[in-house]
Amino acid sequence: MHKLVLIRHGESTWNLENRFTGWTDVDLTPTGVEQAKNAGRLLKAEGYEFDLAYTSVLKRATRTLWHTLDEMDRTWLPVQHSWRLNERHYGALQGLNKADMAKKYGDAQVLVWRRSYDTPPPALEATDPRSERGDIRYAGLKDGEVPLTECLKDTVARVMPFWNESIAPAIRSGKRVVLAAHGNSIRALVKSLDGISDDDIVGLNIPNGIPLVYELDDNLKPIRHYYLGDAEAAAKAAAAVASQGKA
Amino acid sequence: MHKLVLIRHGESTWNLENRFTGWTDVDLTPTGVEQAKNAGRLLKAEGYEFDLAYTSVLKRATRTLWHTLDEMDRTWLPVQHSWRLNERHYGALQGLNKADMAKKYGDAQVLVWRRSYDTPPPALEATDPRSERGDIRYAGLKDGEVPLTECLKDTVARVMPFWNESIAPAIRSGKRVVLAAHGNSIRALVKSLDGISDDDIVGLNIPNGIPLVYELDDNLKPIRHYYLGDAEAAAKAAAAVASQGKA
Repeated sequence: MHKLVLIRHGESTWNLENRFTGWTDVDLTPTGVEQAKNAGRLLKAEGYEFDLAYTSVLKRATRTLWHTLDEMDRTWLPVQHSWRLNERHYGALQGLNKADMAKKYGDAQVLVWRRSYDTPPPALEATDPRSERGDIRYAGLKDGEVPLTECLKDTVARVMPFWNESIAPAIRSGKRVVLAAHGNSIRALVKSLDGISDDDIVGLNIPNGIPLVYELDDNLKPIRHYYLGDAEAAAKAAAAVASQGKA
Repeated sequence: MHKLVLIRHGESTWNLENRFTGWTDVDLTPTGVEQAKNAGRLLKAEGYEFDLAYTSVLKRATRTLWHTLDEMDRTWLPVQHSWRLNERHYGALQGLNKADMAKKYGDAQVLVWRRSYDTPPPALEATDPRSERGDIRYAGLKDGEVPLTECLKDTVARVMPFWNESIAPAIRSGKRVVLAAHGNSIRALVKSLDGISDDDIVGLNIPNGIPLVYELDDNLKPIRHYYLGDAEAAAKAAAAVASQGKA
């Protein structure tokens, strides 16, 4: 039996301001830092050990991982970054306020943008200063790999090759893996692992900074999963994520 | 022409307390954090970019690297940790005060322990609670690889294989490398790069937290080297390191 630990980054400045973030590289708030440290303390208290850590190339996830490892006294663990674990790209909505958009376009439209499996938000123009053009961390990617918007289906399509080619082989080889990433890159992974339907994934929300443990069999099929720590607090935090897009 | 940037970690709690540290995993002081951030600010101001970072498995070096990368807005860079970049092991002196030892054994004896090329300090007993026995970060090492004491010659002998097998090939392939490590692992590297004699290396001191730039030719032979920032401050800081072992 393998254990995989998934952690959505702690609260970011734009979570706090209720803005669509996507690939915008905003940092954690002091609350987010505390959530990340608490994730590390929980994992340490429960005796978790890891051989390998994964994270995105966005600093809210990297910093969450660093604080987690720091609290576990495991700052020396190997860390692998991949853009494929980045948050879903939010297109032209990046930077805009979720409640403002709900007032302007209605709760239903915002829910489609936030949670529709296959309808992406309006795309960024390639020349938009919010686009990743010229960002050296993406300089090695092929044409078309850097998105201008994404629906969750698009996120699944770029997360799963990394799962198949890097994370899954590491777990199969016996490595104990922790992964600090984002609401939607984790939803993409969980959808595939648990075989959640395109309709049902709409209702799944991942709270910030609470370790989500997946127990996997030898074929990496999930046996069960659970949040570490206070289950009620995790459910409340997930419900709060669900309500962010309301006017 | 290649550029390699070496950074000795910022001031640690035991630097501040003037204690022999070695492999003891002490953290940075607030001054050390500021030095690390300043290293990042200097590198950013001078337009340095890196493809790959190396550090030890000790947190004062890792944290120095993290703060440096953070200030450069490069938290997404790949980082490789190796025990081979650890500080020289200080044997049975680890934890003891440098000035106390100088009072007890004389300045000359402490200088031998601190700077002799081939005379190690007294070894730790394998059963000493200060030894690395049971530390999981070293669990994969072969018998005899984890030292109980080291002279600089021993440190050279375990740093250089890592240089030859990992760092040098990365630089030759065009990767721009930054390395955050320790006074003596950096002295070991510099001794080999510059062909410094066993006698002359005694007089070389590396200040905390000031980026040391090596310009290397295609055969990785040094063309020149220099500290970034205020040269006078770097010289003063190096002189302060030299005087630590006096009664």
